Amino acid sequence: MRLTRFFLPVTKDVPSDATIVSHQLMLRTGMIRQNGAGIYSWLPLGFRVLKKIEQIVREEMDRAGAIELLMPTLQQADLWRDSGRYDDYGEEMLRIRDRHGRDMLYGPTNEEMITDIFRTYVKSYKALPLNLYHQQWKFRDEVRPRFGVMRGREFLMKDAYSFDLDEAGARVSYQKMFAAYLNTFDRLGVKAIPMQADPGPIGGDLSHEFLILAKSGESAVFCDREVLDVPAPGADFDFSDHEALQAETDKRTRFYAATDEKHDPEAFSAIPEERRVEARGIEVGHIFYFGTKYSEPMKADVQRQDGQLVTIHGGSYGIGVSRLVAAIIEASHDENGIIWPASVSPFDVGLISMKPDDEPVSNFADALYERLNAAGLDVLYDDSPDRAGAKFNRMDLIGLPWVLTVGPRGVKSGQVELKHRASGEKIDLSPEDAVARILGMD
Amino acid sequence: MRLTRFFLPVTKDVPSDATIVSHQLMLRTGMIRQNGAGIYSWLPLGFRVLKKIEQIVREEMDRAGAIELLMPTLQQADLWRDSGRYDDYGEEMLRIRDRHGRDMLYGPTNEEMITDIFRTYVKSYKALPLNLYHQQWKFRDEVRPRFGVMRGREFLMKDAYSFDLDEAGARVSYQKMFAAYLNTFDRLGVKAIPMQADPGPIGGDLSHEFLILAKSGESAVFCDREVLDVPAPGADFDFSDHEALQAETDKRTRFYAATDEKHDPEAFSAIPEERRVEARGIEVGHIFYFGTKYSEPMKADVQRQDGQLVTIHGGSYGIGVSRLVAAIIEASHDENGIIWPASVSPFDVGLISMKPDDEPVSNFADALYERLNAAGLDVLYDDSPDRAGAKFNRMDLIGLPWVLTVGPRGVKSGQVELKHRASGEKIDLSPEDAVARILGMD
Repeated sequence: MRLTRFFLPVTKDVPSDATIVSHQLMLRTGMIRQNGAGIYSWLPLGFRVLKKIEQIVREEMDRAGAIELLMPTLQQADLWRDSGRYDDYGEEMLRIRDRHGRDMLYGPTNEEMITDIFRTYVKSYKALPLNLYHQQWKFRDEVRPRFGVMRGREFLMKDAYSFDLDEAGARVSYQKMFAAYLNTFDRLGVKAIPMQADPGPIGGDLSHEFLILAKSGESAVFCDREVLDVPAPGADFDFSDHEALQAETDKRTRFYAATDEKHDPEAFSAIPEERRVEARGIEVGHIFYFGTKYSEPMKADVQRQDGQLVTIHGGSYGIGVSRLVAAIIEASHDENGIIWPASVSPFDVGLISMKPDDEPVSNFADALYERLNAAGLDVLYDDSPDRAGAKFNRMDLIGLPWVLTVGPRGVKSGQVELKHRASGEKIDLSPEDAVARILGMD
Repeated sequence: MRLTRFFLPVTKDVPSDATIVSHQLMLRTGMIRQNGAGIYSWLPLGFRVLKKIEQIVREEMDRAGAIELLMPTLQQADLWRDSGRYDDYGEEMLRIRDRHGRDMLYGPTNEEMITDIFRTYVKSYKALPLNLYHQQWKFRDEVRPRFGVMRGREFLMKDAYSFDLDEAGARVSYQKMFAAYLNTFDRLGVKAIPMQADPGPIGGDLSHEFLILAKSGESAVFCDREVLDVPAPGADFDFSDHEALQAETDKRTRFYAATDEKHDPEAFSAIPEERRVEARGIEVGHIFYFGTKYSEPMKADVQRQDGQLVTIHGGSYGIGVSRLVAAIIEASHDENGIIWPASVSPFDVGLISMKPDDEPVSNFADALYERLNAAGLDVLYDDSPDRAGAKFNRMDLIGLPWVLTVGPRGVKSGQVELKHRASGEKIDLSPEDAVARILGMD
């Protein structure tokens, strides 16, 4: 993508209510534009990151055997009256009345709707276990939306829902999501720590939050440093292996890790002092086993192999997709701007032409742009007439993992400068070697 | 995907209000589930088709130089008061009040919001021409939603917005979308005819609708048969070539084609009788040039090269993404079910194991499944214990372009039956040859 054809409204003006660094950087890089309290447009740069996260979440959910569908944003109030949550949910639920006076709402979550879909179609144990998920915009009418997309009102969430014959099955489904979340966050380039949590309004007796450590986090977290070093299950993990699933859980839960809600100072003080981590965390995922909380009032029963009708056991599993964009920035930036993990970077590489009005430089940069595209890399090519310094600063600010610079001196020697954003290292290379280095073949 | 792990609630029960064939087939194949009047969930099979259409629309918009972003579903009422449309829009606009009593609405379209984004960031001619688009859920509170997703209330639309310095530039932007639409519909496997249209509430003086011919269409259409035979611009079309853009428009507009709103019986009767087509059509796209209708009240001005401030000229360009799923079915089905164009089929190929409990058959089918996956094909593998007849009927119903059947006889001779859904042709082949045939290498 040529910068002169792209829409990248980088700005220096940041409103005073942008108090956390991710909010400031997302506004400065033109990733988002506020359209109302807690409501944002994803401008092209931000949209690309959002889509990359969505795709990684999708791949890891699919790998764990979950099936994707898409439920609508608006729901009928009656469905929530069935479960008893319509009155409980309070003012965070955006209630709507249509032209015929029907009570509707903008879905803040989908337990009721998916249970309704399930009970409509599934009558037999043969379809179980089943895990259905979607990635859809939700709305929660926060009284004080803040921190940009970190605590917005309209937000993108991945929510999965599992259905099992009994508690034992449901716990396996829960562990699959536990493992899938570890792989997901690992691929997103962040360390998310699973912590025991209160189920809150979702209900149930087993629940974990996944938190990314960051100074701006809203939750206090207490954990054993060792939990940070347990590797993710990885791409080859066998989700059908129940022992391996249990082991992935055990490997982590044997270390102390809790948010303030569940914090036990005594247990914490038993950890060797040098391993005690007291920090702040951003919740990016939350998983729940809630048994028959929804299936019982909504009569989601299936026939067991022996012919008996049983009420299914459920769980729900959320990932804050739009919040993750901000959380990743909180976890990965420096004083010059964002440092994107390669997996979610809006472009794979930046290319700066220092003198687009100089024909040899321009030809050299054009040829390199073609070469990078041909190698399957997604390139942001700064072919603008801006000053070189402004170009370098902008590339640092938007934080692509690699930046190639073509200038008059390099053109003479047939070399290009390759900069690694995270380390700041620079090296002069031939175009061939630079492409190979970026592709990780060197 | 193994059918036994998928969620495909095929049903025979179709409610009596499903009067058109696409609505019936989408319910029977378990593509959608109604959650309220004009509000649907996209079950896994339907979701896959929706995503394929979305991706083709995206690729063709990108090819034409449009830039993707994503605006939120909810908008502030004040923005629509700026343009004067808040009161004009009537009861189709779903008006919402949040917990603080602020007037909001569920966006039925985004001219106001994109103009607001534009005026915030773009101050100079240098950023023009600019075309920004998104694919987002919209809501129109239809008084009588019907025909399933064909005329739903919550629907997915691609809407693009162009910004140019003057009318001449805006007309080029319009023509780019005109050409991009032809390529889009061509890749979707449907013939969509561009027809002069009334701009309606969007405003403006130049507008075309794109209609797919189908018996259930809501619009009467009148056209010269020859317009149906003009080929799409194609993948190599150069969108920067203004003459070629004009030619693509001219090639079509020289033939008579109009909906009843614009129909001119006299002009129509001048066409040779055998070329006169009187039919019904489904609107799947609508493009508008509306000049300064939004930019003037909303003060979207930019500085020209000579320093003068000018009000930009705009256009908007919609494609009904969710409606297209139904429209394609209307255009492509038979008495046995859907016949998907390969480009949007939920899976590339179906694979039936006639006897999953027979080990040689099962091994043969498993090996073929692996081979198809390895070839990059997306396979729906019916490994269920259902009767063979039920399996054949189900595959016909869901309409994948190719179906492979593995049975005891074929296993002995090392052959598999390949059926082409559209023609009904069947042929026995080795697994190698079958895969090659599907990949189009044979």
